[in-house]
Amino acid sequence: MRAALLPDYKADLVVDDVPVSDPGPGEVLVRVAGAGLCHSDLHLVAGEVPVLPTFPWILGHEVSGYVEALGPGAHGFEHGEPVAVYGGWGCGMCRLCLGGEEQLCATTSWVGIGQPGGFAEFLVVPSPRHLVPLGDLDPVSSAPLTDAALTPYRAVRRCLPRLVPGTTAVVIGAGGLGQYAVQLLRELSAARVVAVEPSAVRRATALELGAHLALDPADEDLAGVSAAAVIDLVGSEQTLALAGHLASRRAEVVIVGLAGGTLPVSPLTLPAEVRVSGSMWGTRTELAEVIELARAGRLTTRVHERDLAAVNTAMHDLARGDVDGRIVLVP
Amino acid sequence: MRAALLPDYKADLVVDDVPVSDPGPGEVLVRVAGAGLCHSDLHLVAGEVPVLPTFPWILGHEVSGYVEALGPGAHGFEHGEPVAVYGGWGCGMCRLCLGGEEQLCATTSWVGIGQPGGFAEFLVVPSPRHLVPLGDLDPVSSAPLTDAALTPYRAVRRCLPRLVPGTTAVVIGAGGLGQYAVQLLRELSAARVVAVEPSAVRRATALELGAHLALDPADEDLAGVSAAAVIDLVGSEQTLALAGHLASRRAEVVIVGLAGGTLPVSPLTLPAEVRVSGSMWGTRTELAEVIELARAGRLTTRVHERDLAAVNTAMHDLARGDVDGRIVLVP
Amino acid sequence: MRAALLPDYKADLVVDDVPVSDPGPGEVLVRVAGAGLCHSDLHLVAGEVPVLPTFPWILGHEVSGYVEALGPGAHGFEHGEPVAVYGGWGCGMCRLCLGGEEQLCATTSWVGIGQPGGFAEFLVVPSPRHLVPLGDLDPVSSAPLTDAALTPYRAVRRCLPRLVPGTTAVVIGAGGLGQYAVQLLRELSAARVVAVEPSAVRRATALELGAHLALDPADEDLAGVSAAAVIDLVGSEQTLALAGHLASRRAEVVIVGLAGGTLPVSPLTLPAEVRVSGSMWGTRTELAEVIELARAGRLTTRVHERDLAAVNTAMHDLARGDVDGRIVLVP
Amino acid sequence: MRAALLPDYKADLVVDDVPVSDPGPGEVLVRVAGAGLCHSDLHLVAGEVPVLPTFPWILGHEVSGYVEALGPGAHGFEHGEPVAVYGGWGCGMCRLCLGGEEQLCATTSWVGIGQPGGFAEFLVVPSPRHLVPLGDLDPVSSAPLTDAALTPYRAVRRCLPRLVPGTTAVVIGAGGLGQYAVQLLRELSAARVVAVEPSAVRRATALELGAHLALDPADEDLAGVSAAAVIDLVGSEQTLALAGHLASRRAEVVIVGLAGGTLPVSPLTLPAEVRVSGSMWGTRTELAEVIELARAGRLTTRVHERDLAAVNTAMHDLARGDVDGRIVLVP
Repeated sequence: MRAALLPDYKADLVVDDVPVSDPGPGEVLVRVAGAGLCHSDLHLVAGEVPVLPTFPWILGHEVSGYVEALGPGAHGFEHGEPVAVYGGWGCGMCRLCLGGEEQLCATTSWVGIGQPGGFAEFLVVPSPRHLVPLGDLDPVSSAPLTDAALTPYRAVRRCLPRLVPGTTAVVIGAGGLGQYAVQLLRELSAARVVAVEPSAVRRATALELGAHLALDPADEDLAGVSAAAVIDLVGSEQTLALAGHLASRRAEVVIVGLAGGTLPVSPLTLPAEVRVSGSMWGTRTELAEVIELARAGRLTTRVHERDLAAVNTAMHDLARGDVDGRIVLVP
Repeated sequence: MRAALLPDYKADLVVDDVPVSDPGPGEVLVRVAGAGLCHSDLHLVAGEVPVLPTFPWILGHEVSGYVEALGPGAHGFEHGEPVAVYGGWGCGMCRLCLGGEEQLCATTSWVGIGQPGGFAEFLVVPSPRHLVPLGDLDPVSSAPLTDAALTPYRAVRRCLPRLVPGTTAVVIGAGGLGQYAVQLLRELSAARVVAVEPSAVRRATALELGAHLALDPADEDLAGVSAAAVIDLVGSEQTLALAGHLASRRAEVVIVGLAGGTLPVSPLTLPAEVRVSGSMWGTRTELAEVIELARAGRLTTRVHERDLAAVNTAMHDLARGDVDGRIVLVP
Repeated sequence: MRAALLPDYKADLVVDDVPVSDPGPGEVLVRVAGAGLCHSDLHLVAGEVPVLPTFPWILGHEVSGYVEALGPGAHGFEHGEPVAVYGGWGCGMCRLCLGGEEQLCATTSWVGIGQPGGFAEFLVVPSPRHLVPLGDLDPVSSAPLTDAALTPYRAVRRCLPRLVPGTTAVVIGAGGLGQYAVQLLRELSAARVVAVEPSAVRRATALELGAHLALDPADEDLAGVSAAAVIDLVGSEQTLALAGHLASRRAEVVIVGLAGGTLPVSPLTLPAEVRVSGSMWGTRTELAEVIELARAGRLTTRVHERDLAAVNTAMHDLARGDVDGRIVLVP
Repeated sequence: MRAALLPDYKADLVVDDVPVSDPGPGEVLVRVAGAGLCHSDLHLVAGEVPVLPTFPWILGHEVSGYVEALGPGAHGFEHGEPVAVYGGWGCGMCRLCLGGEEQLCATTSWVGIGQPGGFAEFLVVPSPRHLVPLGDLDPVSSAPLTDAALTPYRAVRRCLPRLVPGTTAVVIGAGGLGQYAVQLLRELSAARVVAVEPSAVRRATALELGAHLALDPADEDLAGVSAAAVIDLVGSEQTLALAGHLASRRAEVVIVGLAGGTLPVSPLTLPAEVRVSGSMWGTRTELAEVIELARAGRLTTRVHERDLAAVNTAMHDLARGDVDGRIVLVP
């Protein structure tokens, strides 16, 4: 099969032919329809956190496709069925996995990071429990649901107890994930939604997608915003300082972005009882809920399809920060 | 002041002049703008639950108006300020009151039921804590927010943990309260909303207000509905049986209506772990949230204004069941 | 292997030799150490709810033992490792299963009920995820943890939000499950614990296990009890009526027992906002928590060991109601 | 009346005679039985956060006593009734106050900080809602319940969802508040409780009060501790770094101490989804729950009574850090 191989950290990817594995006992072979390109992939290629187990490596953790073959003992899906691939693969037996929080499992078995990923024609999935039926959704444009939508979904859900009517939710960063965050806040709460984003194009998109207000980080109107919840999809020193600044008493601040900043927390530096946490991807159940939203026509996905052969160009475009939506690689 | 007086159970009301009380220490005198007419008033007049403390009695527990005068020590509002009257007056000192669940207090001090109500030109409110500023909302048409909207708001909130995307919420009864329930479910959740209502006019209204589906209780399509939450605004034997029938595993069933039916609960008669409870009015904080929704333009109120002098006609219309929305008496 | 076979509804069990199955792909063969005898078994034998799939049938849903053999692809346990068998086997793929609420799955695959059970020398378990390591706990006396302790654990957890200091929890029925319920309430809350139980012997046991008060159902002192939570382990008309009578405003009433009664719920028949639900067994995660409590020495189990050959005598003793604790069959 | 007056920041207190105020409308005059001395008082005297509104000032926010007189309109208590004074006085009308979170109100009206406090023979309390009956508890030794016990109670409650059986809770600092934290964790959860404290005397006290383990911060055994919840009652750079180090995935870290440190939070610096927040005092409802625990004999208070005249000596002893328990000033 054709696959995009990463030969080493900081190297360009090479599209080449590699053998397709047969699905083992309990496994499922998926024919990839689309694989989203994510900022995490840039971090991985750069080797900032050198977690890749070997080289050459196949990236791709945001994957959808069609069931191609079921290994011995695997069941529940039929050949050709369109599916989203839940990628937070865990051991399946620890307390976190059994409680459904598999992406938090201490093992490092995520698709595309601990296990080979979806920048390829085929993908071996360890268990049918990692597949969610897509129904009549288009598989290619559904790939971003598995990360770009799922990740803010989990963050938004953590904020919901604070987002009673009359409150304000702030989304910092209106790129691939932020555009979903805006929509999810509108669908799941009655809060006023404010997007903070330096790109005028993305601010316009955020407003189209339902944000009540979209502000440049330098806009003076930000001084008037008092948020019951802040979701930071960037995670830099600057955005986290802004998050702490916008939070009101008892606010929930959720950090999703991995830009390397930190928010110093203490009772003396933040308003009373502000609660700060990171949020990591999502659960398979949460993915199923995201897909239900998409099937009900309540989530708009801005997808830019690219051929897998153009993976390096796509990565450069993403790194330059001028993608309004999500790039999906099509093998 | 002019007031509608109930001389005895099962009697017509009499509009007459009675003295206005001065507000005592900590009290507030409110000039009534509008007082909603509620099915509970019919039950009270009928003497079904003979709780009224004396006769002649002034009913009216759904009240809005303008601050007229502040008693000694009362503060926080200005003369003429438009306010909604939170009516679940409690002792203010028990655990329920201090936790904000004042309408559940064991004392019987609700406006219009344990204390004189708002079917009059003026109303004495025991404390400023029972007033919620209306801002630029029209006081007359805002009166129903204090009960017709507040009561389903509390019921809807109890259901929210179950109403994840992909689930269905059922509202039984699309009258005064049910029309708010439909809107609130749309604003606060991503669930599919199904209204069950025998009146074709009200079904049409429910659809206008956002219901995805509106069915007659006899409609065969009901057989296909499996609900994660059911809010029964009627509470008869028939509607509660229907509620139990529509509930799926782990569903939340909330009974608001007081029509006298019961739902027999056991692990053998309902799907696994269905949870059934009554819901009683709402808290002052919940009222503030409802008013925030209205101020944000997210709640439509269908109000039929009637002069206080027409109170008996209004009650007969309500009893006949052909009011599509809420009658508000204007003194 | 030796097994106790049920030839038909309402028949005595017959101990006989049957072949041992080899564990298939992903399965685990467990050598049974002990299998608890439960009131549910009496209901099943009586055919009250005729759910058994075939005859002769092997009952036993409360099982512990040792890992004997792992089928192809199964891993995570070693030969001879002592384990508790989580018995609420579900499909593993539906939303309930993935969220960890596998015992609520719509399939009927529970051990001993939908699948052959543990009244035998060996038991085939469909997946290692259904096993919980027992560590240094004695396997025979640990069998009741998987149901007699797990079931009230789930019920107690549902009540915890109501059981703040100063409140009272009532346990109706101080038999096999009730004795655990009393202990669990003491370990997990600061509530006052009142056991209601007709047997003087069991009342004495409840007091030994930590109940602050143990009353006969006919005791006049019950009139003074106002409960924030009631757990009914019997579920008859009488006990459920008592549960409704003891519940205070906002109380949580959880029905565990399957004696066939119902509690009629409405806002007019129960104190304000009492919430009533059935509770069904528990999750694998909850079982792991119960076992942690036992390993920490915080749960006392009263076990009466009987040889598997004495299964019919044991069932008669249980039916007569004079067992103070739990009978465990040892093959 | 006799009162301890603070003439200015960084000055010694002066015990002198000042007039007693009459209770105004709605107010209550309390005869002080005891007033606890708290580290916060040291911070206030040092002027670290210069919030005191005027000089001379009467400190004391941890107060119990007897109802002496009720102002016009105040009711609910009788002369001589022993009461604890809830000190987080707020405006009573904002959303936080109405929801019962009065200590988080944006006004600065706390007893002893925004309003005159309890280092005196008498104290004017703005409303009966700030009083909690003590029943048969000794008022002098109950004073610390209002802060030293209430503050960790709120923090412990936030951690409870994480403290399932099998988990570990860490208390950093086993002084006045920490000794209560240890007891509260034992009463309200089944977690293993580990106290971290440099003083050997206090470690011994923590063990007596129920801690399963008490370690010096330099103890190597700390490396083996993995906590589902950490409550830091110190709040220095060192203790917060330790808190972050001990936290496991999804742990709750609650900062109570005001020693001026911060914990830098990001998804990259802490285990996955650790949640960090400050906790501020407690609510009146929470105080009532603490008092219920004390009345049930479940809270041990180590009190050192000192005459109000010895206030300066007492403050120096506290500053030196060798008080094992809580100093209560008796006027």
